[in-house]
Amino acid sequence: MYSAGDVRVIDVPDPVIQQPTDALVRVVNSCICGSDLHPFHNLPATPGGKSMGHEFIGVVEDVGGEVTTVKRGDFVIAPFAWSDGTCDFCREGLQTSCRHGGFWNANGVGGGQAEAVRVPLADGTLVKVPVSEDSALLPSLLTLSDVYGTGYHAALKGGVAPGSTVTVIGDGAVGLLAVLSAKQLGAERIILMGRHKDRTDLGVEFGATDVVAERGEEGIAKVRDLTGGDGTHVVLEAVGHMSAYEQAIGVVRAGGVISRVGVPQYDEAPVGFATFFVPNITLTGGAAPARAYIDRLLPDVLDGKVNPGKVFDRTIELDGVPDGYRAMDDREALKVLVRS
Amino acid sequence: MYSAGDVRVIDVPDPVIQQPTDALVRVVNSCICGSDLHPFHNLPATPGGKSMGHEFIGVVEDVGGEVTTVKRGDFVIAPFAWSDGTCDFCREGLQTSCRHGGFWNANGVGGGQAEAVRVPLADGTLVKVPVSEDSALLPSLLTLSDVYGTGYHAALKGGVAPGSTVTVIGDGAVGLLAVLSAKQLGAERIILMGRHKDRTDLGVEFGATDVVAERGEEGIAKVRDLTGGDGTHVVLEAVGHMSAYEQAIGVVRAGGVISRVGVPQYDEAPVGFATFFVPNITLTGGAAPARAYIDRLLPDVLDGKVNPGKVFDRTIELDGVPDGYRAMDDREALKVLVRS
Repeated sequence: MYSAGDVRVIDVPDPVIQQPTDALVRVVNSCICGSDLHPFHNLPATPGGKSMGHEFIGVVEDVGGEVTTVKRGDFVIAPFAWSDGTCDFCREGLQTSCRHGGFWNANGVGGGQAEAVRVPLADGTLVKVPVSEDSALLPSLLTLSDVYGTGYHAALKGGVAPGSTVTVIGDGAVGLLAVLSAKQLGAERIILMGRHKDRTDLGVEFGATDVVAERGEEGIAKVRDLTGGDGTHVVLEAVGHMSAYEQAIGVVRAGGVISRVGVPQYDEAPVGFATFFVPNITLTGGAAPARAYIDRLLPDVLDGKVNPGKVFDRTIELDGVPDGYRAMDDREALKVLVRS
Repeated sequence: MYSAGDVRVIDVPDPVIQQPTDALVRVVNSCICGSDLHPFHNLPATPGGKSMGHEFIGVVEDVGGEVTTVKRGDFVIAPFAWSDGTCDFCREGLQTSCRHGGFWNANGVGGGQAEAVRVPLADGTLVKVPVSEDSALLPSLLTLSDVYGTGYHAALKGGVAPGSTVTVIGDGAVGLLAVLSAKQLGAERIILMGRHKDRTDLGVEFGATDVVAERGEEGIAKVRDLTGGDGTHVVLEAVGHMSAYEQAIGVVRAGGVISRVGVPQYDEAPVGFATFFVPNITLTGGAAPARAYIDRLLPDVLDGKVNPGKVFDRTIELDGVPDGYRAMDDREALKVLVRS
């Protein structure tokens, strides 16, 4: 990406093993993320370009001398942050704060919208999966890189438990997988706020019990109506704009939790006396440690009990990536899968 | 209180039983709260005056026909909100959001800085305690009306558990009792941020392991130094000013929790990408359901295992209340106990 709206597919030098803890992964599938649309809207001119993509699955082509958990030929999932797996944060399941980790597309590490990626700290980062390159499960496995883990993080941090009432704000891939996650954690009622019927239909398939298409005050009133005026115990905010935050405040029940996984596009927000303090509202969430959830979520994916890969509604080749951004930005596609 | 700084002791009609669920309580001890200093600073001219005080203990003088749990002659603690004890919020332990409850000094209900108070919903509100009017435990019992329960709420909502590292911001009565509560919940390290040595000394007695007198960036650096650069898992914010909030952000560890019980004197605050989202910070706390914690905290008070009443460093009679406000506002007194 060279600037807002300017995405190009170019040839770059092949990545190579640099550290004994690296692995080289040939990308089989990657995808475009809703959060990639933020730089697509506002990246300043970047003469050298910026590599993109933070979600990928693929095959290990080579490993450094200290790598012990994956080897050439293994099929692996890469979460959206790389991490050592051994520091105190990683042991606590907060790999996004790893003491030695980092994020793709920074500090000499490439991104997933590519043919191959050098993966630092391969033992802590990659998860080996017993599937082949032509498995029908690939789309669902790919969601474990980010969007499924992010939706699950929202629900888990929100404290969703059997009997919870939940509102999910946003019908993008993360919102829909927050619905699925809330359902898996036992939510009794899941109200999905979203305007795109094809998407909210998938949300209903994932477990939403109600759909509210209205936004703003009208949407809030609708959710209040559905909940005897109270709002829901938990609100999962999967958008990131201030309007979604305000909607979250409007629909959360006293004593409830707003769990944010939409990347906030604001610095300050209402957290004052009337909105937060008197009703004892909790604000939580954040960048999901997707790595922490892969082990937990993988079995049901492998068994076919859940099919989070349904969020992909378009598949393109690597040279179609520029148009993929456009299609997601135009809301023509929910989420675009890229074949490398 | 008639306006900022204008506190008067006046005669008003004696309260009487109005509802069959009321009790009439003769106040034995009440006190002045740090939060009473907010109207003391900014109450607009109020020609009829406003009754004050939301913390009191006393003796039941009369009860309405439907009251079953307390009777004439019982010694009782009144928490700072009255509540029915039976609605869903009360059953969840969030009595401050009771569907039929309310707060003192509003809607025809008086306050604790008085000789007597009509207590609505007496069965849900009052807690009977087996002590006499001359018990040495009265100051500690009085803290269960608000400040001890509020400190405990901070620690509990902050998730303090055995091994936690905790920073407490503020050396007022709530901050000091947040220290005590964190200690009771098993915190391993408790860093108290406060500038008044006599107060922080009491904090050390209550369980603080470190005291940081510096504020702002200097204070943050000190706490970071004490914690290997990381900050603490939990921050208990017992002040309510924006500077305290910013301090909380500065000293909280990634993945940590800021639990606020200082009444926020701002509407908006930083909760954005870098401060909150990437490090997965949780913001919680709020108006404490003191009623919920009385049963839990009372046994150790009655056994003398804890002595939260040490936060009172001045005792006055009812006619000394105006000077009591002044003394607390001038930081001459930590917390003023009022004998009615």
